Amino acid sequence: MRTRKFTLSEQEIPDKWYNIIADMPNKPLPPLHPGTKEPIGPDALAPLFPMALIEQEVSGEKWIDIPDEVRNIYSIWRPTPLYRAYGLEKALDTPAKIYYKYEGVSPSGSHKPNTAVAQAYYNKQEGVKRIATETGAGQWGSALSFACNHFGIECEVFMVKISYEQKPYRKLMMNTWGAQVHSSPTNLTEAGKKILAQDPNSPGSLGIAISEAIERAASDPDTKYSLGSVLNHVKLHQTIIGQEAIKQMELAGDFPDIVIAPFGGGSNFAGLAFPFLRFNLEEGKNIRCIASEPSSCPKLTRGVFRYDFGDTVGMTPLLPMYTLGHNFVPAPIHAGGLRYHGAGVIVSQLLKDKFIEACSHDNLEVFEAGVLFAKAEGIIPAPEANHGIATAIKEANICKEEGHSKTILFNLCGHGNFDMKAYQDYFEGKLVRHEITSEEIQNSLAELDTPEIA
Amino acid sequence: MRTRKFTLSEQEIPDKWYNIIADMPNKPLPPLHPGTKEPIGPDALAPLFPMALIEQEVSGEKWIDIPDEVRNIYSIWRPTPLYRAYGLEKALDTPAKIYYKYEGVSPSGSHKPNTAVAQAYYNKQEGVKRIATETGAGQWGSALSFACNHFGIECEVFMVKISYEQKPYRKLMMNTWGAQVHSSPTNLTEAGKKILAQDPNSPGSLGIAISEAIERAASDPDTKYSLGSVLNHVKLHQTIIGQEAIKQMELAGDFPDIVIAPFGGGSNFAGLAFPFLRFNLEEGKNIRCIASEPSSCPKLTRGVFRYDFGDTVGMTPLLPMYTLGHNFVPAPIHAGGLRYHGAGVIVSQLLKDKFIEACSHDNLEVFEAGVLFAKAEGIIPAPEANHGIATAIKEANICKEEGHSKTILFNLCGHGNFDMKAYQDYFEGKLVRHEITSEEIQNSLAELDTPEIA
Repeated sequence: MRTRKFTLSEQEIPDKWYNIIADMPNKPLPPLHPGTKEPIGPDALAPLFPMALIEQEVSGEKWIDIPDEVRNIYSIWRPTPLYRAYGLEKALDTPAKIYYKYEGVSPSGSHKPNTAVAQAYYNKQEGVKRIATETGAGQWGSALSFACNHFGIECEVFMVKISYEQKPYRKLMMNTWGAQVHSSPTNLTEAGKKILAQDPNSPGSLGIAISEAIERAASDPDTKYSLGSVLNHVKLHQTIIGQEAIKQMELAGDFPDIVIAPFGGGSNFAGLAFPFLRFNLEEGKNIRCIASEPSSCPKLTRGVFRYDFGDTVGMTPLLPMYTLGHNFVPAPIHAGGLRYHGAGVIVSQLLKDKFIEACSHDNLEVFEAGVLFAKAEGIIPAPEANHGIATAIKEANICKEEGHSKTILFNLCGHGNFDMKAYQDYFEGKLVRHEITSEEIQNSLAELDTPEIA
Repeated sequence: MRTRKFTLSEQEIPDKWYNIIADMPNKPLPPLHPGTKEPIGPDALAPLFPMALIEQEVSGEKWIDIPDEVRNIYSIWRPTPLYRAYGLEKALDTPAKIYYKYEGVSPSGSHKPNTAVAQAYYNKQEGVKRIATETGAGQWGSALSFACNHFGIECEVFMVKISYEQKPYRKLMMNTWGAQVHSSPTNLTEAGKKILAQDPNSPGSLGIAISEAIERAASDPDTKYSLGSVLNHVKLHQTIIGQEAIKQMELAGDFPDIVIAPFGGGSNFAGLAFPFLRFNLEEGKNIRCIASEPSSCPKLTRGVFRYDFGDTVGMTPLLPMYTLGHNFVPAPIHAGGLRYHGAGVIVSQLLKDKFIEACSHDNLEVFEAGVLFAKAEGIIPAPEANHGIATAIKEANICKEEGHSKTILFNLCGHGNFDMKAYQDYFEGKLVRHEITSEEIQNSLAELDTPEIA
C-alpha cells in the first residue's frame, strides 16, 4: 500500500512559533498614528489587545514558546495530516508531485483555531471577560467562538452581512459554542450606523466588520478585540502549519519546489509559507512561495504598496501594506474570507522585496478547481481553499506543458461543509464572473489620503 | 502535556475484517423466502448484490482479508483518532474515564464510507455500472456517492423526503461527487407510487426508500443495490473501527468496561462493539456493550424478535430481527439515520442471547447531551452520534452516584456540520418530544403476518 497520508504524533506538535521578522533583511515599516503620522509604540494597542499579544506583535525574537495549555488544546486536532494528492495528479495527468496540508480537521473546519486558541489563552491570562471580533465567511468567528468557549470568555462576533445570510449554519455553529453573532453593518456601533446611512443595503465587508468590533472593544474596558488575520502575532501563531509540513515532507522523502496558499489578510499563507521561506532567508534556498488571491480583490497583484487603514472606517493605525484602498468593497464572491482590501505588513514587505510571488484566479475558475479536487481526492474544499488548489493546478499544468516535474505543496485550509450553497450556485450556473477594471481600482485608490511610502 | 488523542499510522489500518458469526454460540437463523417461508440460499440475492458481497453475507470465516485497494482508499481518513474525553469528564465531574472513537474525519463525515468503499470496490470488480441505494439523514448516501465516484460507478440515491427537505446541503454533497438524488417516496418506482397513493404527504422512511432502491436494482440488469446498514457484510466492513480502537486503548494503557454506540440498523454499533465482544466470546471477558436507540423508534428495547421484512413494501427476504413491524413509520426526529423499524440479524441474535444490552433516549435528551459535548470537547456531533453520547453520560453519572470509576468508550460516529438546522430547532425550543405509546407499538406489530420464531 503506497502512503498517501503523512501523520505526526501529538508529541510532535511544534513547541515554538517561528517569527520571520527576525530573518527579514528589510524589517516592516512601523505603523503610524493616523492623526500625527508619527510611528506609534506598542502602548497604543493596549486598549485593544492583552500585553502578551502586543509583545508578540512587535517582537524581533526568532522563536517564541507555545504555552503548554495552548498545545494541549491544539492536540484536539493537531498535528494535521499532510497528503500526497495521487488522485489530483492522475486527474491532471501531470508529472508534478502534489502535496497538501489539510487544516480542515479542526473543530471549526479551518486553520483559524491555531491563532484563536492562542489569543483566547493570552486574553484569559490577563483577565479579559469578553472578546469582540469580525468574521467574513464565518471561519474566523467559529474558531474564536470555539476558543473562547474553552476558556470561559464571552465572544461577540460581527459577521459580514452577505455571509450571515449565505451561511446561517456558520452562525449556529458559533451559537452552539455560546457566542453572540450580529449581521454587520449593525446599528450597534457608530461605525455601522455610518455605513448604513450611506447604504442601507450594504452587503458588508471585512473592513466594516473590523471597524465595528474595534469600536466595541475600545468603548468597553471589559472587552478586548481579536483579529483573525493581517497582524504579525496572528501570522506568528499560524507558523505551526509549515513547521509540521516540513517534518511531514521529510517523512515523504520529498521537499517542495513551490509552496502555495490562499490569501485573504495573510495568515493562511504565512502559516504554511514562512517556515519554508526560512530556508530561503537562512540558507539561500530558492523555494517559490505563491500567495493566491481572488481576481475580484487583487491587492497583491494589482494594488499599491502604501500606508492605509486596516479597517474601512479608519480606526486602526496606518499600516504599510499592499492595498486597494480601505473603502474598497469587494464583489460578493463566496470566498468571504478573502474579501479584504489589504495585506498584512510582513507579507507586503516580503512581496515588495520579491521574496514571495502572488497570482489571482476568478470566482468561476476556483470552483472548477474545487470540484475537480473533490472528485479526485474526496475532500470538498472551502471556497477560500479552492484558490490554492487553482494555483496548484496551474503550476502542475505548466509542468506538464514543459515536460518536467516539480514538487508542489499547498494549504488546503478548510473543508466546504458550510459552503454547499456556493457549490449549488456554481452547479446551477448562477455564479456571475466577477471582474474588476483598472479604472475601478484607480478610483478606489484615488480616494486614499494616507501617506505614500518613499 | 497529557495525551488526549491516540493515533495510529497508516500501516496500522487493519488488514482483515472480523466476522463475529464465527464466534457466536447461536448462529443467526436463516432468511426466509416471503412466499414459501423456506430458507433461501445465497443465489436469491444475486440480482441485488455482486457475488463477493453475497459470499461475505453468508460467510462463517472468522477473518476476511481487506483488499489493498480498499485499504488504500481507507487511508484518506483512517486510522481515525481515539480521544480521551477530559473535557466531558470535567463537565460531568465524574470519576469515570471516558474515551471516544471519532469517525467524523471521513470525507463524508461519518463511519459510513468504511463499508461504502468496500461495496463499491466489489461492485466494480464485477463490472457493475450503477448502484441504487437509500439514505436517511444523508450520511449513507454521501458515503456511497464518494465511493462510487472513486471507482467510476454511477450512483442513484433515494433520500427520505423529510431529510431531503431538512438537509439540502447533504444532497449537494452527493451531487458534488456526481450522484443523482431523489426525494423518496418518488413516482419513479411502483413501491413509491403505492406509498404516495396511500399518503401523498408521506415524510418517507428508510424502509420505503429501501423498497424503491431495491426495485430499481431488481428491474435493471446494469444496476445493483447497496445497503448502508443491517446486513451482515455491512457490519463486517465496519469492524475496522473496533479493531483500531483496541490498539488505541492499548496506547492509552486502558481498556473499556463499557462500549457504547448509536443504533439504527446496527452497523455503527457492530463496528465498534463486535471486536470488543470477541473478548467476551473468546476469553469470557465481561465488557458491557450497549446499543443506544431513539425512544421514538425503540425496536431493541420495546420491539419483538420475529421474522419481518427489511423494507416497508416487502421486497426483501424475511429476516429474524427485533422489529417494530415493517409498516412502522418513525416520528420525524432529526436523527434520520436511526429511523428504521428493525435491527440487523446478528445484533438481534446477540441481544436475544443477552450478549449485548440496549437503551433508549428521547430526542430532546440527546440534543442536551450533544450541546454539552460540543462545549466540553469542541466537536459538534451529528444527531445520531448524540445518542451514544447520552448513554455515555448516563453511565458516567451512575459512576458518580455510586462513587466508582468505569472506563467508558463510545463511537462518535459523525460530525454535525450538516445538522445545524436541528441544533437551531433545539435552541429555539422548536423540538417536540416524540414519545410512543405501547398501544402504537402493539398496533404496528398487530399488522405483522410474518412467521413467529419458536
